[in-house]
Amino acid sequence: MPKIVDHNKQKEKLAEAAWRVICRDGLERASVRNIAEEAGLAVGSMRYYFSTQSDLLAFSMQLVSERICDRLRRFVPAGDAIEDVLDVLCEMLPMDEERSTEMEVWFAFISKALVDPTLQALSLYVYDDMKGFFAKKVGQLIEQHPAGSRLDAKLETDRLFALIDGLAIHAIMHPKRLGPEQMRAVVIYHLQSLFKH
Amino acid sequence: MPKIVDHNKQKEKLAEAAWRVICRDGLERASVRNIAEEAGLAVGSMRYYFSTQSDLLAFSMQLVSERICDRLRRFVPAGDAIEDVLDVLCEMLPMDEERSTEMEVWFAFISKALVDPTLQALSLYVYDDMKGFFAKKVGQLIEQHPAGSRLDAKLETDRLFALIDGLAIHAIMHPKRLGPEQMRAVVIYHLQSLFKH
Repeated sequence: MPKIVDHNKQKEKLAEAAWRVICRDGLERASVRNIAEEAGLAVGSMRYYFSTQSDLLAFSMQLVSERICDRLRRFVPAGDAIEDVLDVLCEMLPMDEERSTEMEVWFAFISKALVDPTLQALSLYVYDDMKGFFAKKVGQLIEQHPAGSRLDAKLETDRLFALIDGLAIHAIMHPKRLGPEQMRAVVIYHLQSLFKH
Repeated sequence: MPKIVDHNKQKEKLAEAAWRVICRDGLERASVRNIAEEAGLAVGSMRYYFSTQSDLLAFSMQLVSERICDRLRRFVPAGDAIEDVLDVLCEMLPMDEERSTEMEVWFAFISKALVDPTLQALSLYVYDDMKGFFAKKVGQLIEQHPAGSRLDAKLETDRLFALIDGLAIHAIMHPKRLGPEQMRAVVIYHLQSLFKH
């Protein structure tokens, strides 16, 4: 019987091997050769899945963002507007190892996106998607809270989005300076401040 | 007469050549060879200023942070606490080409710092320095404003620091989505919100 290899599963395996290389050695070491070695695959068979390194990196970047978005979509709200937003925001912060790895890889990709048009297009797509997500959450807060109408939806969205990404970057860069508890405390403080009038 | 070359000036010139290479082609292209070419110098004479690529990158990274800090130190407060903090925060945001270049280069460096111990140590040093700066600004706001005592100095510092870095990254990644005016509007909104009680 021929060996059946799920094409997409194999591509994901390769993308995950790319993440490990990026986290350990940096994006500049994420060559087709190094990723093949990390995945235990011959360089030749890599070409079957990705024709260029750029394709492989774009797929890896997309997979990180999909993992994060999947987690956000799976999130079940418990009912309290502020608590729910807090929980979902924490899903986007490097609160544990899995999320820290995702953020580190994402961070490496967006840095590379500054000089790589394919990654830049993907990064813009994710930016717009995430911004839409933040706008929705801010909209819910404004709608569900009696003091919500005093808030400016557009500015609150930009502020919250920047705050979360800023915290994420500080925490992955300097985890000893900004740990999960302190990140969570800042987000709680921020959400509470919205309605302290 | 022998040609007198100011050693430090020459090092700065090389660091600036490194920035240009990083902004245009990415950090992975910032090899000693490419930087020498960009600076119009023979690779051999590079060794006179920097013994390794890592030394050159560390110096370039330090120079970016020094330029930013110099600008912050030169800042002359006009008297109004909120206005002054707003102006000084805008000095840290990619409001014009010079500041955008600095931020792009800085962003590339901190991304590389995740896998380079020398750059990581430098990045931590700058993080602590910047955090001290933010703590001082928050302290001034709390002290000078009648409603300041309601604010939590530590959490406000982490929040403001993350907000500014988040805005900076969003703006350099997607300048068409977040331009100078909108960044400034978010910072004004944030500062005003502190005292809206």
